[in-house]
Amino acid sequence: MKVSIVITGSEFVYGIKEEKNSRYIAQKCLERGLDVNGIGIVGDNLYNLQYYIKMALDKSDIVILSGGLGATEDDLTREAISEAIGVPLIYHKDWLERLKKYYHKKGESIDERRKSMAKIPYGAVIVENPIGRAVGFIKVLEDVNKVIVALPGVPSEMKVMLEIVFEKLNLKEKRRKISIVRTFGLTELEVDSIFRNINIKGEYILNTSPKGVDIFLIDNLEENLKIKEKILKDRLKKYIYAFGNVEMEEVVGKLLREKGLTLATAESSTGGLISSRVINVPGSSAYMKGGIVAYSNEIKEKILGVKEEILKKFGAVSEETAKEMVLGVRKLFNTDIALSDTGIAGPTGATPTKPLGLHYIGFYNNGVVEVHKVIQKGERNDKRLYISQYGLNLIRLSLTES
Amino acid sequence: MKVSIVITGSEFVYGIKEEKNSRYIAQKCLERGLDVNGIGIVGDNLYNLQYYIKMALDKSDIVILSGGLGATEDDLTREAISEAIGVPLIYHKDWLERLKKYYHKKGESIDERRKSMAKIPYGAVIVENPIGRAVGFIKVLEDVNKVIVALPGVPSEMKVMLEIVFEKLNLKEKRRKISIVRTFGLTELEVDSIFRNINIKGEYILNTSPKGVDIFLIDNLEENLKIKEKILKDRLKKYIYAFGNVEMEEVVGKLLREKGLTLATAESSTGGLISSRVINVPGSSAYMKGGIVAYSNEIKEKILGVKEEILKKFGAVSEETAKEMVLGVRKLFNTDIALSDTGIAGPTGATPTKPLGLHYIGFYNNGVVEVHKVIQKGERNDKRLYISQYGLNLIRLSLTES
Repeated sequence: MKVSIVITGSEFVYGIKEEKNSRYIAQKCLERGLDVNGIGIVGDNLYNLQYYIKMALDKSDIVILSGGLGATEDDLTREAISEAIGVPLIYHKDWLERLKKYYHKKGESIDERRKSMAKIPYGAVIVENPIGRAVGFIKVLEDVNKVIVALPGVPSEMKVMLEIVFEKLNLKEKRRKISIVRTFGLTELEVDSIFRNINIKGEYILNTSPKGVDIFLIDNLEENLKIKEKILKDRLKKYIYAFGNVEMEEVVGKLLREKGLTLATAESSTGGLISSRVINVPGSSAYMKGGIVAYSNEIKEKILGVKEEILKKFGAVSEETAKEMVLGVRKLFNTDIALSDTGIAGPTGATPTKPLGLHYIGFYNNGVVEVHKVIQKGERNDKRLYISQYGLNLIRLSLTES
Repeated sequence: MKVSIVITGSEFVYGIKEEKNSRYIAQKCLERGLDVNGIGIVGDNLYNLQYYIKMALDKSDIVILSGGLGATEDDLTREAISEAIGVPLIYHKDWLERLKKYYHKKGESIDERRKSMAKIPYGAVIVENPIGRAVGFIKVLEDVNKVIVALPGVPSEMKVMLEIVFEKLNLKEKRRKISIVRTFGLTELEVDSIFRNINIKGEYILNTSPKGVDIFLIDNLEENLKIKEKILKDRLKKYIYAFGNVEMEEVVGKLLREKGLTLATAESSTGGLISSRVINVPGSSAYMKGGIVAYSNEIKEKILGVKEEILKKFGAVSEETAKEMVLGVRKLFNTDIALSDTGIAGPTGATPTKPLGLHYIGFYNNGVVEVHKVIQKGERNDKRLYISQYGLNLIRLSLTES
């Protein structure tokens, strides 16, 4: 079955506010085996909205709307649906009662606009809103065998209500399964050429970011996905850091916890990003002792004990400094494992011998230090994210090899 | 003039990849005084895409497409436009020559699909792609006085080419001005009620995040915006941390730099997020010395010198610990200013007397320590972002008061 999604809100059409509901609804539809035809984002304008709804109905079996069900003058979704399908709006008595009680309890009056939150097209079935005031609804257009669904724009309300909608629609579609395989260390082209070689059937989508290349496998059968995952595992081996929507810091955290190891970081270029990512994982206090953000040379010397002559001879961005930093922080925090980085994130700071994007990443584990040289192009913060991912990946690789 | 934006890519319609181009184009259109009617996001399907283009043309004076101009089989934008407007595609000779030279130089052959990147509708004007291979184009439909613009989906290419398009279109529209006023410390309701009281005319949009409430003012006249900004400044005073698209860490950085002051951080709950944000600002090495991420009590004691009896008596999440931390880090780094935080970000760690979300933020400036108690609800990382914003805001307030 084909689905169109229509989102309303002038803030989105102006590009002022980030619109996230459409992506969420699209993903849920994909999982349910529903084909999303298209997504329309429309301002709070009755004529436009009504036009988009008509067009969406023309192209799809199900139209899911989000937004415009509140009590302000900008909330036009009910009216637009009513006009688009030529069905009048009526009050849903029970919901109206609930609204009256709610406002009465708060000691407030209920005006026409507030009352409108109980309005639905004649013949529609309500979708209760367990969190907010605006009621959602499902309207079946029997003559054309199509369905319109209206949900609020508040993400938390929309999300619970969307599940209720899927239940009520009692979809017979085969659920489509999606599997995410996350890789680090290969380019998108490399991953893609591996795909073409192993000739995996069915859909896949690649998504590249500073965190690596994510592979989205799509199939109707769970077992097919498992087979594909297995093939990828055999081919991509250590490049895969996670199956599923899991972050590198979670993978690393799990390994550290299982092995009872502790971690400390000495960050210059990433400035606390690595420690911040590690600590984002609930339960990280079991293995994360902390870190030093040594942005100035003074602190590299004074706190991490990087020797003055090393900083003078090789510079702050050097293999030698990265090594001293990681040894220094590991000594200070007395951990099993330590990471360090130093680099030129830009926009300035490059020299003839040290280009923009040059980074050294130091890694200590069990008495051994490795230093990796990386030159990474791109935007300042993308570089940092890449370096943090690179560093965390070093921990992962060393703990899965042993 | 009315604009519709059409984005193509199955990855967006599946909700797998975050779609960012539409928001960018919408913002640029708004600044240029163009009214965006709606945004359509369509999968890589010739029929659907063509349908969306037709519909967009029906509703708008200008249709801007992004994506689907590459050399793979999924790239269908050229064909879809050709079908939608009934105009054949032809090769743009000069661009085709450029492509041939490019691939020749790389020692690669140029097949039909690669050649297709030089195809444009008959009568269209090309928009040169200064970064990539796919050419963009502008096709004027003279009989209906409408314009179709096709740009690649790669954000960096789309962005430069969009500017070229605006130049070529030679728009006579009055540019609309947008002004962003960023506040911290007020709720959206509070900001909104202030607005209603001062009765500012014209459009505004509020956007709330852990970083605060942003006010977007929209007006045709720069001077009107200036007046509104002035009124807001008088009313909201210190709650405003920036005019324009500026981050708190930039504001703080500018203040520290101007006053020649240095900063260090001692982070527990935020785990390096504050230092990472400070260091994200180019030139931050002038004032940022670094920081300690003291996630474990051991490190709070050993490196920051928080007394054992304080940790025992009051706990790690306490006013006393936050104070000791900030004093410790400021001593260690010998800075003018220091920040510390300690808290329960969750999901576990709450006690009967210390609820989830409880944080203490320590602030040192010129011999004086303040500790702020904050209880913040929400998702783990939203809490951290809020706390980091709160901490940075303390620096801002103290440096603008003096």
